[in-house]
Amino acid sequence: MNLEQSLAEVGGRVDKTLDGLLPREGRLAEAMRYAALAPGKRLRPFLAIEAGRLLGADQEAVLRAACALECIHAYSLVHDDLPCMDDDDLRRGRPTTHKAFDEATAVLAGDGLQSLAFQILADPKTHADAAVRADLVLDLARAAGADGMAGGQMLDLSGSPHLERMQAMKTGALIVAAVQIPLIVARAADDVRSRLVGYARDLGLAYQIADDLLDAEGETEELGKAAGKDADAGKANFVTCLGVESARRKRDDLARSATARLDLFGDEASSLRDVVEFVLNRRR
Amino acid sequence: MNLEQSLAEVGGRVDKTLDGLLPREGRLAEAMRYAALAPGKRLRPFLAIEAGRLLGADQEAVLRAACALECIHAYSLVHDDLPCMDDDDLRRGRPTTHKAFDEATAVLAGDGLQSLAFQILADPKTHADAAVRADLVLDLARAAGADGMAGGQMLDLSGSPHLERMQAMKTGALIVAAVQIPLIVARAADDVRSRLVGYARDLGLAYQIADDLLDAEGETEELGKAAGKDADAGKANFVTCLGVESARRKRDDLARSATARLDLFGDEASSLRDVVEFVLNRRR
Repeated sequence: MNLEQSLAEVGGRVDKTLDGLLPREGRLAEAMRYAALAPGKRLRPFLAIEAGRLLGADQEAVLRAACALECIHAYSLVHDDLPCMDDDDLRRGRPTTHKAFDEATAVLAGDGLQSLAFQILADPKTHADAAVRADLVLDLARAAGADGMAGGQMLDLSGSPHLERMQAMKTGALIVAAVQIPLIVARAADDVRSRLVGYARDLGLAYQIADDLLDAEGETEELGKAAGKDADAGKANFVTCLGVESARRKRDDLARSATARLDLFGDEASSLRDVVEFVLNRRR
Repeated sequence: MNLEQSLAEVGGRVDKTLDGLLPREGRLAEAMRYAALAPGKRLRPFLAIEAGRLLGADQEAVLRAACALECIHAYSLVHDDLPCMDDDDLRRGRPTTHKAFDEATAVLAGDGLQSLAFQILADPKTHADAAVRADLVLDLARAAGADGMAGGQMLDLSGSPHLERMQAMKTGALIVAAVQIPLIVARAADDVRSRLVGYARDLGLAYQIADDLLDAEGETEELGKAAGKDADAGKANFVTCLGVESARRKRDDLARSATARLDLFGDEASSLRDVVEFVLNRRR
């Protein structure tokens, strides 16, 4: 199975599980489903599940926790797209949640998705051991909060000059949280932990640089969102700061570093290596 | 000590603990602190702490969990006040968070406060037993989410005709969550649980009707927010639906019912009884 097939297979399982976890009735449920079940790669769940396979972690626990992580990711997209934030009308080629519904519903759908994420993690159905459930909550809450994703988005809006730190918080924290899920579930040893966390950090930054390169070079149609937006807005990103050539070099260095961290795991880690390649070559 | 003194004493402890739990650096931290440490009665933490005293629950655990609950309450006020929601400029007599900062910062401050709530609950410092921590997360996540507070706000914005159900979700869920904290921490028996939950349900509804009566009868200066807002907006509430007299009667019936549920606990429950009186007599 190549990466595209693996992503599709895992994405299908994630969507099916998410579908069962999301509320069903009323306008808020509808908006939460619209946001969380939107077409997407489910890259973070994929990282959690593939790292989980590598570690022999309980698959059902990892799958449910990966759905919780996807809820946090989905909520952040809904709120980041709001007119008072990045003001985006399109996301993955379809209207953003506040366009498909309205702003108030989008704010509440994001809020509801965040609550749902922690509800899923704390549910005994996710894992029989309460210590695992509490640790999953603690790690994801930190990754999502003021020292993680939300704090990174604040730095981004404030035009922070610390681009790498901002991105490590804004997008990196949830990618690291993805590998933390199976590390927590499998109660992995410290050396395994530091390697996978290092892999996720490198991958997350390479991913963001690749995103900035796409923004600078891509076409709106290919991206499913407006291209050249950062440069047009006079917003600093890795390309506007480093230039295209240096940004590419940095992306490639990080990709090599991410791959090297997987050496310990041998052939078993091939799908995690493929993700690095995918980030290097992605067109959208 | 009368209720006013008890509220002030407990409020002081809650604010001191919250102060230590909230982040300190940067604009997002500043906005989160502005929202969570705003002057207020800290009624929900008070209910948690007083019910905890009654049950002999670990005080430090209840105090920290009560701070988490207050974070959820504070986040909901920040988001509810946004221009796309209730569009309020004043809250407790001072500018709302999006007025004191800006809309994007207010959205993120609310998001960060929600994450912080679950981070506090899942932290081993809150309770040594992970099962207690996970149960606290599960209960508060349910109370805050699509089947609770966020869902209730959605029904409110949609102009739901099911006023009582809407209010039970929008404001009642967090008041019930307040008494659930010590019930979970003390692992209370079912009969104790059903009495305190019943008390909180009655109290929450009485509180909302009292709020609607104040909105209809109060003065802007006394309230610290615009009076007569619901009627001006043509919005249904207990007064516009039932009329002032019936609304008062319903409030009083609920207050009597709430008080009766405390009979089991004798004199020990006097402060919880005082809260009912306070709701009946409150002027702001």
